[in-house]
Amino acid sequence: MKLHGYFRSSASWRVRIALNLKGVAASHVSHHLRKGEQRAPEYLALNPQGLVPILELDDGTVLTQSLAIIEWLDETHPTPPLLPADPVQRAQVRAFALVLAADTHPVQNLKVLNALRALDLPETVATKWAAEANASGLEACEVLLESALGPFCFGRAPTLADICLVPQLGNARRFGVDVTCYSRLLEREAACMAVPAFAEAVPTRQPDAE
Amino acid sequence: MKLHGYFRSSASWRVRIALNLKGVAASHVSHHLRKGEQRAPEYLALNPQGLVPILELDDGTVLTQSLAIIEWLDETHPTPPLLPADPVQRAQVRAFALVLAADTHPVQNLKVLNALRALDLPETVATKWAAEANASGLEACEVLLESALGPFCFGRAPTLADICLVPQLGNARRFGVDVTCYSRLLEREAACMAVPAFAEAVPTRQPDAE
Repeated sequence: MKLHGYFRSSASWRVRIALNLKGVAASHVSHHLRKGEQRAPEYLALNPQGLVPILELDDGTVLTQSLAIIEWLDETHPTPPLLPADPVQRAQVRAFALVLAADTHPVQNLKVLNALRALDLPETVATKWAAEANASGLEACEVLLESALGPFCFGRAPTLADICLVPQLGNARRFGVDVTCYSRLLEREAACMAVPAFAEAVPTRQPDAE
Repeated sequence: MKLHGYFRSSASWRVRIALNLKGVAASHVSHHLRKGEQRAPEYLALNPQGLVPILELDDGTVLTQSLAIIEWLDETHPTPPLLPADPVQRAQVRAFALVLAADTHPVQNLKVLNALRALDLPETVATKWAAEANASGLEACEVLLESALGPFCFGRAPTLADICLVPQLGNARRFGVDVTCYSRLLEREAACMAVPAFAEAVPTRQPDAE
């Protein structure tokens, strides 16, 4: 299988972690987002949204949207599970993931920041916008973990929540957010980074890293 | 169980459809978003993100994030299913839903439009921003249905994809998007609106409608 992604894309980063946790090998195909390679006709034929990542299966099936890809991976490769067994706990993990993957990341991604730049606003406005989106999402997540047991977001094993958290903290730092106030999130991140599946998925360790 | 929502919120609308499809009764508690009732301390105690909807279970458990709520509902009330049985088809339905619920709706919701207004831009900029976000998401969805069989988004029964599509078309019209070019989406919407679960969930038929 092939993962079409970009080293710095946090949605690609999520899928890299999930593949590593499952021990599933995929060849990596890089599409340079800042050069607009995701808008090339041959890429749009794979994903009309023009976004990374895509997971291309061996039979040519194309899966898009990081959370849908990760749920597919969890359903077809059940060990280790990326969601708890209990339905309420599954909902809590998914909600935490969606605070970041739906309400935070899409509001600060390259496409939105370019739309802001197109309004002729100074670059500081785009950076502040991205920083505020990150801070707002992380703040909500910090509260969601108030009574959750560690060392990972929701217990003794990493879940979809941790898979979304680690790349989002990476983004937040990139936009200059002071993340030191999110002590629970930082504890969870430290637990994750001690796991090779997470450590090997960071952007700087990817072949297309600049 | 209690659904905390708002008649016009498309995320609340999604959960109303899902509850109706499952035949699950819930009392509706309205929080007026334009008056900022979702920022009241007692509401933030339920959901630190200050967003609707919330599904409050009879034992006091609070579920947030519409897609997580709908997945919970599907896992605990399996009939009729809101996702296909096959993992690849599930991924396709979830991806379609996420194009709207993650990449479209959060970029045009009240919070983002208020952030734009805070930049002292004319109101037309906010409306155009919201319209473009809707058009971009719907355009991708129209392509995703290229080879999908109807009458619903992905076959003979409504799924999570239809649940996200109908409210998003509602939003698009509200922001003045000409949706007539999305013929596949409009066909799917018409099939949905013939189903009472969808027809009864529209904003104008809610008790808090203005």
